[in-house]
Amino acid sequence: MSETPDSVVQPVRAYIEAHRAAFLGDLADWLRIPSVSAQPERAGDVRRSAEWLAAALEDTGFATVEVWETPGAPAVFAEWPSEDPDAPTVLVYGHHDVQPAAREDGWHTDPFEPVVADGRMYARGAADDKGQVLFHTLGVRAHLAATGRTAPAVHLKLLVEGEEESGSPHFRALVEERAGRLAADAVVVSDTGMWSETTPTVCTGMRGVADCEIDLYGPDQDIHSGSFGGAVPNPATVAGRIVAALHDADERVAVPGFYDGVAELTEAERRLVAELPFDEAEWLRTARSHGTLGEAGYSTLERVWARPTAEVNGLGGGYQGPGGKTIVPASAHLKLSFRLVAGQDPDRIETLVREWLAGLVPAGIRYEVAFGAPTRPCLTPLGHPALAAVAGAMSRAFDGAPVRYTREGGSGPAADLQDVLDAPVLFLGISVPSDGWHAPNEKVELDLLMKGVETTAYLWGELPAALRAAGR
Amino acid sequence: MSETPDSVVQPVRAYIEAHRAAFLGDLADWLRIPSVSAQPERAGDVRRSAEWLAAALEDTGFATVEVWETPGAPAVFAEWPSEDPDAPTVLVYGHHDVQPAAREDGWHTDPFEPVVADGRMYARGAADDKGQVLFHTLGVRAHLAATGRTAPAVHLKLLVEGEEESGSPHFRALVEERAGRLAADAVVVSDTGMWSETTPTVCTGMRGVADCEIDLYGPDQDIHSGSFGGAVPNPATVAGRIVAALHDADERVAVPGFYDGVAELTEAERRLVAELPFDEAEWLRTARSHGTLGEAGYSTLERVWARPTAEVNGLGGGYQGPGGKTIVPASAHLKLSFRLVAGQDPDRIETLVREWLAGLVPAGIRYEVAFGAPTRPCLTPLGHPALAAVAGAMSRAFDGAPVRYTREGGSGPAADLQDVLDAPVLFLGISVPSDGWHAPNEKVELDLLMKGVETTAYLWGELPAALRAAGR
Repeated sequence: MSETPDSVVQPVRAYIEAHRAAFLGDLADWLRIPSVSAQPERAGDVRRSAEWLAAALEDTGFATVEVWETPGAPAVFAEWPSEDPDAPTVLVYGHHDVQPAAREDGWHTDPFEPVVADGRMYARGAADDKGQVLFHTLGVRAHLAATGRTAPAVHLKLLVEGEEESGSPHFRALVEERAGRLAADAVVVSDTGMWSETTPTVCTGMRGVADCEIDLYGPDQDIHSGSFGGAVPNPATVAGRIVAALHDADERVAVPGFYDGVAELTEAERRLVAELPFDEAEWLRTARSHGTLGEAGYSTLERVWARPTAEVNGLGGGYQGPGGKTIVPASAHLKLSFRLVAGQDPDRIETLVREWLAGLVPAGIRYEVAFGAPTRPCLTPLGHPALAAVAGAMSRAFDGAPVRYTREGGSGPAADLQDVLDAPVLFLGISVPSDGWHAPNEKVELDLLMKGVETTAYLWGELPAALRAAGR
Repeated sequence: MSETPDSVVQPVRAYIEAHRAAFLGDLADWLRIPSVSAQPERAGDVRRSAEWLAAALEDTGFATVEVWETPGAPAVFAEWPSEDPDAPTVLVYGHHDVQPAAREDGWHTDPFEPVVADGRMYARGAADDKGQVLFHTLGVRAHLAATGRTAPAVHLKLLVEGEEESGSPHFRALVEERAGRLAADAVVVSDTGMWSETTPTVCTGMRGVADCEIDLYGPDQDIHSGSFGGAVPNPATVAGRIVAALHDADERVAVPGFYDGVAELTEAERRLVAELPFDEAEWLRTARSHGTLGEAGYSTLERVWARPTAEVNGLGGGYQGPGGKTIVPASAHLKLSFRLVAGQDPDRIETLVREWLAGLVPAGIRYEVAFGAPTRPCLTPLGHPALAAVAGAMSRAFDGAPVRYTREGGSGPAADLQDVLDAPVLFLGISVPSDGWHAPNEKVELDLLMKGVETTAYLWGELPAALRAAGR
């Protein structure tokens, strides 16, 4: 699969081995900065994290390194032009902010004091996403060392944002504003994972997400259900009816028009999904769930990777304290989110949901709907040559193991890059499900982290031909 | 209508006028005790409330006053025998506990610091039910003062419970256990209201109520809706589906068997209801509501007085904070209540609801249902002579205004008294719809409160003949 000759592999591996310890020391330094973007009191730490990364990228040799301000947390941009003026441009995306973490959440050690044990580094952000961002520094140095170059074979750009864990509220505006500086022939996203330690995989797409809050108002205050119940509309009842109307009997989303344009799985894709060593009982344990339920006609993996959904994230209204209170509540509230797949436009989904809602709310109930900033779905076709280049580089790093394809059910700002820059998105992630993203005791497997380094070291050499083949 | 001579009316009114200020001071003292039976941390206050009332009844002159313990909050019992051994026995029922109330719910003043303004007293419990319990103390004193008696014309008993706002969980057992002490020829319930300030009415029945909490459990913890959404059952979605399944398209309760045995309104009853000066726009203002919605084929009054219902009192689950959180929640919770009418048995309703629920919850969701102690429906036939006595006393207090008949959509343990003591239930309530039961800024109209006092002062003289006519 890989075009990378053995004459490159050996020096790449030697270079990585020689610099592994120093790299891990640097990573640990970065992980000590608690760059939690969701916590306003950590804003200074998020900024320190950006500055730390900027310095590290300068040390690596990037020609240009800039901290880009946003209305929220700063992003870091870096650029290292190739000496070949015809080389394609590749933009690497990642993020330097992390999820909240506190010892009392169940961490065995301080989440911001990295600990190495059993070949793993434990710390908040170790896998999501600092480890996977930082491997690009050692990767490009290994690429240069092994090929004798003084600049990468691609025009290499990095954009590392600081608000991903807060929903990237300013990311799309930043990308639109800086589209000229960010222009690229391909985007490499290092913020996902692979199937397992023993099954290297390349992700081909992510679901998007549109979320909304629906506030339903009935009586001006809670009223006595004895005096008035049965004769006035109850906003909590209407909330329930909206929830029930979200799906049909086949668990398909029942908002009219919702599936219009959905990119259906091809037979080839369904075959690839079916070939993965999927153990539903094991998956249910990971999901902490006690049964499967989803759209008729699709497997569990197809449902989470390739099918759009409607989910109730929260609901509330009326009396929720101990015991009972016989009221018709004044209000009820729903938080819904819709996962979207390629072919679905979040703006159109918002329009469809608003139209659908209007037909469900009876006279006497006032309602408000507020949509958050959506995240678009993104998908790179299976046949894209650049995807083959990523798989080839990864296979080489994994000693020739076959690389399979997955998708990601979650959502990220990758699609904004695809959209605004009009470039295919390639996912290069080496995290595994046990890494505990967003959970206590997050860790990264150090040997896999080095496989990530190695993959990028090969990828920069292989991408130019692949992108030429794709007509970029 | 009234048998009470003018020679009694004038001294009754003079006595009430002379003692009004002291009576209102006493009521304010009682209202300062936050006897919220639904809040465990208020248990001490509920007890203080019982002790306060016991002392007030002793001061009034009751021969026997006892605080009766229950497994929950204490009740107060008092007895004042007539000097006529053939006098009928009347048991007055009320409650000394109140609904929860907090300033932040929308109260303009502290709910437990009574404020008198514009001829009203504002406080939690002012109308429901402390004001209407306490008027019996001044009423019996006025009865004695005006008639020159040293004991009432009826054997007067009072039973004032402390758990009505929590569904009277131990009331029926208490009544059964103490049936001998409570034996009566009629029960007078002062825990309802009348049509309006200008239309005195006597209530002939109350709806019952059965309430339940339904707890639904899905994943063992909140899980990522991107990684798992669309493939596992969501307890919040199931909660919504249960709510939606409560009613059919005609807003009839859709629990199979729910309407079996329901006492339908007679043509005469429907005519009496239709004759009331009902202004739907005004009713909606009182209901603080912006539309009517209810069972097809019935008027608004019929819906709240004489038809059973299913109501969502509260619902909750998942993320309810600011912004969004893309999770499949671990759990969701519903609080439902069913209003019942004569002919419906709460135990059978519980069975029907449990059977219905079992068919609605999918595999992978665990659920628990807990029913509170039910309150039975109750109804006194329109032709009962004692009902005419109440109407006569009330008409006299209201300067000869005609008294009409209503029902009460709310619920009280009156039906347990009717059941266990085999005595007709008479309702003597002077609260008006704007009093805001269970709502912020509950108040009582002070002039009406005095009409309540006056009505009882006449009633004790009129009931003996009426009950003899009824064969008691």
